[in-house]
Amino acid sequence: MTSIVPHLTTALNGPLLELEAHLLARQTDVECWLREQWQKTPAPFYASVDLRNSGFKLAPVDTNLFPAGFNNLNPAFMPLCVQAAQSAVERLCPKARKVLIVAENHTRNLFYLESIETLRDIFEKAGLEARIGSLRDDISETVSIELPSGKTCEISPLERQGKRVAIGDFSPCLVLLNNDMSGGRPAILEGLEQQVAPPLKAGWSTRKKSDHFTHYAMVAHAFAEQIGIDPWLLAPLTLQCGEVNFMERSGMECLARNVNTLLTTIQNKYDQYGIDREPFIVVKADSGTYGMGIMMVKSADDVMNLNRKQRTKMSSAKEGLVVDNVLIQEGVYTFEKIGESVAEPVIYMMDHFVIGGFYRVHTGRGIDENLNAPGMHFEPLAFAQSCITPDKLDRPDAEPNRFYAYGVIARLALLAAARELA
Amino acid sequence: MTSIVPHLTTALNGPLLELEAHLLARQTDVECWLREQWQKTPAPFYASVDLRNSGFKLAPVDTNLFPAGFNNLNPAFMPLCVQAAQSAVERLCPKARKVLIVAENHTRNLFYLESIETLRDIFEKAGLEARIGSLRDDISETVSIELPSGKTCEISPLERQGKRVAIGDFSPCLVLLNNDMSGGRPAILEGLEQQVAPPLKAGWSTRKKSDHFTHYAMVAHAFAEQIGIDPWLLAPLTLQCGEVNFMERSGMECLARNVNTLLTTIQNKYDQYGIDREPFIVVKADSGTYGMGIMMVKSADDVMNLNRKQRTKMSSAKEGLVVDNVLIQEGVYTFEKIGESVAEPVIYMMDHFVIGGFYRVHTGRGIDENLNAPGMHFEPLAFAQSCITPDKLDRPDAEPNRFYAYGVIARLALLAAARELA
Repeated sequence: MTSIVPHLTTALNGPLLELEAHLLARQTDVECWLREQWQKTPAPFYASVDLRNSGFKLAPVDTNLFPAGFNNLNPAFMPLCVQAAQSAVERLCPKARKVLIVAENHTRNLFYLESIETLRDIFEKAGLEARIGSLRDDISETVSIELPSGKTCEISPLERQGKRVAIGDFSPCLVLLNNDMSGGRPAILEGLEQQVAPPLKAGWSTRKKSDHFTHYAMVAHAFAEQIGIDPWLLAPLTLQCGEVNFMERSGMECLARNVNTLLTTIQNKYDQYGIDREPFIVVKADSGTYGMGIMMVKSADDVMNLNRKQRTKMSSAKEGLVVDNVLIQEGVYTFEKIGESVAEPVIYMMDHFVIGGFYRVHTGRGIDENLNAPGMHFEPLAFAQSCITPDKLDRPDAEPNRFYAYGVIARLALLAAARELA
Repeated sequence: MTSIVPHLTTALNGPLLELEAHLLARQTDVECWLREQWQKTPAPFYASVDLRNSGFKLAPVDTNLFPAGFNNLNPAFMPLCVQAAQSAVERLCPKARKVLIVAENHTRNLFYLESIETLRDIFEKAGLEARIGSLRDDISETVSIELPSGKTCEISPLERQGKRVAIGDFSPCLVLLNNDMSGGRPAILEGLEQQVAPPLKAGWSTRKKSDHFTHYAMVAHAFAEQIGIDPWLLAPLTLQCGEVNFMERSGMECLARNVNTLLTTIQNKYDQYGIDREPFIVVKADSGTYGMGIMMVKSADDVMNLNRKQRTKMSSAKEGLVVDNVLIQEGVYTFEKIGESVAEPVIYMMDHFVIGGFYRVHTGRGIDENLNAPGMHFEPLAFAQSCITPDKLDRPDAEPNRFYAYGVIARLALLAAARELA
């Protein structure tokens, strides 16, 4: 394994160092508090969290409850994934022998298939029979797809059998959704007697980013109070507007006003910490993923002067979801770089365990751009170390301690998602 | 990490290959059955299991509920230990913030101190404050000991404070025993309101090897039935004699008779599997550890003709425990070798998770000798891979699959220990 780690390209890392130092010094409080939270609100089955690290701030910007990218994790941490999968299964349905993983519909994306095959393998290694099912109408029999890694991925059509879904005579105890259901709750999955995880309501047709970040703000606030830091260091400031229609230009005044308000609040925080950067804002559709329905703005004018193409882009999310509620969120600079490339951490969790992560390494993108935009190419760089082996004897920003900080912030986002689903 | 693996120096590996192939093919049954067992009988807090691998048989010979040797595990699997420790703590006392580890009394053994310091570090990384306490009278204040690894180990005197034990104002929620209490249940640990794990009755003053192997035989039988194999492939045949006094030569006839019976049974099994080896037997004191009170015999005459030195050795175990009940156990050849050295696997578990293992590599010892005898020197060779990532596409005896088999058999021994303590 390579042990390349991104370096922070900003000297403004005082607050982050303070955060990392705090998390280390108060590690017992951190873990104890989190343990207590999981007792109250069980963690979702699995999740990945996109983080932004600006050096002065470390915050989640997206929490995915149907994570892909398992193939990008360090193979050395496969045992950690297996053990976490065993814990997750034990908690949810201890008698499970079979798990059916319901795939996304873009089954021609080889990167995605590598991920879901890795996920399947984790469950096989954990001692369950695991197969992959598809919701697509045009898959009527099992297809085998050769993957770039040399593995083979088998995808079979889902069948409804009374109150169960199955693949032929493979009738699982656990139905694991890896499909974010942006297009709505699939009828074939309604009213099952089988255990379905995450629940159907976790799909993007019902889930709202605003709910998530409202919960995240509360989680961050309570957590920050516990360890005695400013919650701003780990939470993006967020406002929202309902009833926005970009095509009809309705609701634009609310948007512009909130953009203005938020820019002022961010500027005040920047002043407080002596940060000599221009605040920016990310405007997001309330539902949806894959970086669709997202734009960056640096002023209220940017909102008022959107051209037709930009408005069209904001009006539709994945699979034609219509945007109405809009999230206005503090943009967090990415100051982690590998060479000339921007690097963004993505953290993976199963049950409440952090099982690893990787950096999305982008070339030719700015530090204030959305790095998960459609068609975006990135090179994954697996974390060389785990996120759960902090070293108090080392510097607060040493590799294991930075990874630990990532894991803590990602778990706060996971907790927000848990409360969202509760 | 080195990836040296011992090779089997016997061609008689058909039965083992069959066992390994069975465990792989029936992995879902294996894991499902084990999951079910842990629901019925929770696993001990932690354990290590010594295995013997004769190529035709893979069996546990010792299950230690107060394991040392954590320093011999592959540092790459530290995250696995940390995650398992978190699970163990969550199950046993989720609100714990502090853990006090009660050390063995031989606190001048630097190998032991490396182990307990590694154990302490696992809990620190898992987010608990962890300190090491001693039962020794001659430790009246905290001592700091520099270890060969460069680490420092701090050991403090245990203090009784009402219904709690503490180190000064460090009053833990969890008291973790790493002292096998061969000398009896320490008064200072009786009647505590704190959670004590493993329980005091797990100490060698109350625990009996015969109980363990009786439970193990039942576990192995039920398990073998589940996956359709001969339980002999994974369990050492065992008989016992009560009321043996080696010094007074009483009970020797029972011993000789049982040795004869067992040798015949083993020979029958060897005949059944075409194994051209001389059966041998290990006679063990029912309580005790560190390889004391153990001898090898190949005939009833060996028992009748014990000399005074041998009888003295058998009469005393650690800290002067008197032997009365004696275990007569099928000896399992060790046919795993690295170069000219015999290599024996030791598997570590925390809660019901297999966290790793290492080989005890001995030079200049025979394949039928006890490799954990007093004063025995061995070189630890950490497992290069985990025990929980079997690979069905590889050979049944490929490295990850052999390690998986070790982990399964070790968990059967763990389950026997769980039932013993229940």
